[in-house]
Amino acid sequence: MPQGKPDIVPDDGLTTRQRRNRPLLMVHTGPGKGKSTAAFGMALRAWNQGWPVGVFQFVKSAKWRVGEERALRVLGDSGEGGTVAWHKMGEGWSWIRRPGADHSDDAREGWAQIKRDLAAETYRFYVLDEFTYPLRWGWLDLDDVVETLAGRPGAQHVVITGRDAPERLVEAADLVTEMGKVRHPMDAGQKGQKGIEW
Amino acid sequence: MPQGKPDIVPDDGLTTRQRRNRPLLMVHTGPGKGKSTAAFGMALRAWNQGWPVGVFQFVKSAKWRVGEERALRVLGDSGEGGTVAWHKMGEGWSWIRRPGADHSDDAREGWAQIKRDLAAETYRFYVLDEFTYPLRWGWLDLDDVVETLAGRPGAQHVVITGRDAPERLVEAADLVTEMGKVRHPMDAGQKGQKGIEW
Repeated sequence: MPQGKPDIVPDDGLTTRQRRNRPLLMVHTGPGKGKSTAAFGMALRAWNQGWPVGVFQFVKSAKWRVGEERALRVLGDSGEGGTVAWHKMGEGWSWIRRPGADHSDDAREGWAQIKRDLAAETYRFYVLDEFTYPLRWGWLDLDDVVETLAGRPGAQHVVITGRDAPERLVEAADLVTEMGKVRHPMDAGQKGQKGIEW
Repeated sequence: MPQGKPDIVPDDGLTTRQRRNRPLLMVHTGPGKGKSTAAFGMALRAWNQGWPVGVFQFVKSAKWRVGEERALRVLGDSGEGGTVAWHKMGEGWSWIRRPGADHSDDAREGWAQIKRDLAAETYRFYVLDEFTYPLRWGWLDLDDVVETLAGRPGAQHVVITGRDAPERLVEAADLVTEMGKVRHPMDAGQKGQKGIEW
């Protein structure tokens, strides 16, 4: 994409450089495809900068994101870019092994870990994949989530994916993209396929 | 994303498996972010399947897609998944070295190579990045592009990115996602930054 020029220069007391490098809270929402794939595509850029990347997957799936996970693990282990830590809910997060826990408990423990990591500035780039669902389902306290994200220290970028992002999260975000569905193969009776959907 | 079930089963004479594995023509368009990042995120899935991936970048940029390119080259060279071939216009495509050529000539040569690769089934997954622009600028023959893509042999998936996808290309596609801009940091006077925009 050609580089754009800002339409307005805000009176916020920041230098252009400070403003340019402001950490971003990003949301990929909407009914269309590409919300998570775009977040993992961004993770490639973060990896290339040598940044530690943390992925937290919030919805259990039979297919997970096997392609993205394997690719990011290979990249993280290559010694060329940043490190990659990949955490997934449902089979137990990597930092706890407590099978049989309730999914809402899992979600709360995942969020508690993210809060610890944000406070410790563990990663420079976070993917909170399908994080809108536990928010929508009332498993997490939206006030706590928005305040924690808005007040995170340092230069930590966060991208959140999932349909139906709560309005207050959208308002708190610096960058919001709505993926709209124009046409999808399932409309023509086609189910998901390997290499495309996972 | 939870696996969906098709609403309708078409009377097209294909088995579910044949229909499921039908090669897809995909378009990521619209004014929002995520068009290319989602395409490169999909490329991770293709790589994980062991498929040969071919990337063709159609718009010259000072920043190119340095993060995605380095990541996909490391993956392609890892010996774990599929191979990756990365081609970019403007500095001369990798198969020709003819500096000073007109950009429209470059675009036509890029498309000619894609036609040869589709005919030879060189790759299983193609990213035609920012391909809508040479189409919009009239550098390529839209009839030829749509017919070639629609008639491509084998099981080759193609994803095309860029704003303002021509309507006939959208109609020919199996899957179209419109990335809508809800909020972008440039609106608040912020320019692009490393690790995020490239």
